[in-house]
Amino acid sequence: MNYPRAISALALLGSALILAGCQEKPGEEQARPAAQTAATQSPAGELARGLPPTPAAQSGGKALTYFNPPEKIPDNEFGKLVRQGELIFTDTPTYAKGFAGNGLNCANCHIDHGRQPNSAPLWAAYVSYPAFRKKTGEVNSFEERLQGCFMYSMNGKAPPADSEVMKALVTYAYWMAEGAPVGDTKMAGRGYPELDKPAQEPSAERGAKVFAANCAVCHGANGLGQKASNGKYVFPPLWGPDSFNWGAGMHRINTAAGFIKANMPLGKGGSLSDQDAWDVAAYMNSQPRPQDPRFTGNLAETDKKYHDENCYYGEAPILPRKKG
Amino acid sequence: MNYPRAISALALLGSALILAGCQEKPGEEQARPAAQTAATQSPAGELARGLPPTPAAQSGGKALTYFNPPEKIPDNEFGKLVRQGELIFTDTPTYAKGFAGNGLNCANCHIDHGRQPNSAPLWAAYVSYPAFRKKTGEVNSFEERLQGCFMYSMNGKAPPADSEVMKALVTYAYWMAEGAPVGDTKMAGRGYPELDKPAQEPSAERGAKVFAANCAVCHGANGLGQKASNGKYVFPPLWGPDSFNWGAGMHRINTAAGFIKANMPLGKGGSLSDQDAWDVAAYMNSQPRPQDPRFTGNLAETDKKYHDENCYYGEAPILPRKKG
Repeated sequence: MNYPRAISALALLGSALILAGCQEKPGEEQARPAAQTAATQSPAGELARGLPPTPAAQSGGKALTYFNPPEKIPDNEFGKLVRQGELIFTDTPTYAKGFAGNGLNCANCHIDHGRQPNSAPLWAAYVSYPAFRKKTGEVNSFEERLQGCFMYSMNGKAPPADSEVMKALVTYAYWMAEGAPVGDTKMAGRGYPELDKPAQEPSAERGAKVFAANCAVCHGANGLGQKASNGKYVFPPLWGPDSFNWGAGMHRINTAAGFIKANMPLGKGGSLSDQDAWDVAAYMNSQPRPQDPRFTGNLAETDKKYHDENCYYGEAPILPRKKG
Repeated sequence: MNYPRAISALALLGSALILAGCQEKPGEEQARPAAQTAATQSPAGELARGLPPTPAAQSGGKALTYFNPPEKIPDNEFGKLVRQGELIFTDTPTYAKGFAGNGLNCANCHIDHGRQPNSAPLWAAYVSYPAFRKKTGEVNSFEERLQGCFMYSMNGKAPPADSEVMKALVTYAYWMAEGAPVGDTKMAGRGYPELDKPAQEPSAERGAKVFAANCAVCHGANGLGQKASNGKYVFPPLWGPDSFNWGAGMHRINTAAGFIKANMPLGKGGSLSDQDAWDVAAYMNSQPRPQDPRFTGNLAETDKKYHDENCYYGEAPILPRKKG
């Protein structure tokens, strides 16, 4: 494999990368101790609900206390919609049928049902919108932000703002953010942590080895995930036709590296070196995934318009969009 | 004038009224000192923006501190949408054309651009939705709550959830709620205060005198408001074809009494006696206003389905709905 543009471009990352990565997560950088992640993992490999959240982390010698989302969903009409939102969030292909377009659940990128700090938790996202986004060039509502997840990360279709799917997801996020301050875009644990630029340029070749040693056991040697007997994924596909497309936030190597460092392997977040996280993110980025839905018909034009040096778009394989 | 059902029903109010009034405003009862309201009034008769909000009020000997909404709108793309929301909020017929159906502005019921405690301030409303509402029998998003204002209080059409009008209003409310705790439905000053049941049954006849002495100077002897030379209302019509319809929250005598007590006459909130507030609310309720858009075609059925003893629906005159 050889992705010369990307690899030379990665040499230039430095402060540009930090700026680019800031767009969706203006919080401070936070490392999450592996032991605390492990403590909240269930034997089934999925993070359990209702356990005490990570109370604090160290960042530059400063103790960070994370927001404590509520645990008990009320037993009333409001709670019913919250539960529906949680079902959509954790089994998206089933409960958001017609909108989800691949094998992923919201909870694959937003671990512990969207509760986990440094895993783009819902409680921090909810209070951060409406907000201007560089990705769209305008102020987006929280609903529009979720629509983006469906179009890119779920490789599907946007649920309308007034649809039941959207209402349930917004209500779930609202419930989870109970007590969080509206407009606080600096909550500790918001988004994914930003990693410093790596000592060595990220290498898909080295990343392949990191993947084989740390990731393949769950995601499969081919990275296409693993399904249970009911046909549902228990470990998500990282690439291929059932994974996120070239427009998702996770298609950016720096974003993926931050997510991986903080959260992967599942239950052992923080255990990979920064370099390994960058390398395995580069490896993941070198794999085939569905076309960016913003594709203009011209690869170079789409690349220039929507992608920067933080990905191998146009160099790594691009799969066709699903029909329908 | 004689509204025997309403007047006999009002004799039964008591605890039932308090329950009914709780639906949209579960906060404690709060009285607002007149001096503090007066201090924030501009000479033009409209409450000025950017003045220090009422810091505290006394309720049962307990000092209440009100939420302090932000004052400065950011000078960026986000701020542009906030400003657009404020324009819609304060000149609704102009900036929400096609949706507003009468001469009212949002700010007529939500004084000081939606900032005023005890005047259903936006900052308290924003953190209270999604929520189950008895009025609709389901969980409503904040957008759906605003759509209700347009359908009933503005006697118009609901802006779609993804419309620019809705986005601007939500963004304005979000900005104003900066720092407020998500899900806090007990913020001091939320909604309108609930008044104790009056010593005497509310009387439209007595209310007519209260109106003439306290309200007619601004709202006109005929209650139809006053327009400036540009054709825009400077004082809103309280009834008639350009006012809220029989489905608006304000069409309930108890809701109107709470609003009037806390906020009227403008700049002199708290100066009317409770009895006067109830009486003038009854007088306002005895006047003609547009049909409830939920009208089923049968008055008795509509009355039973959507109205309780807190109004004269079906007894006071009903104007036809506007066309279009």
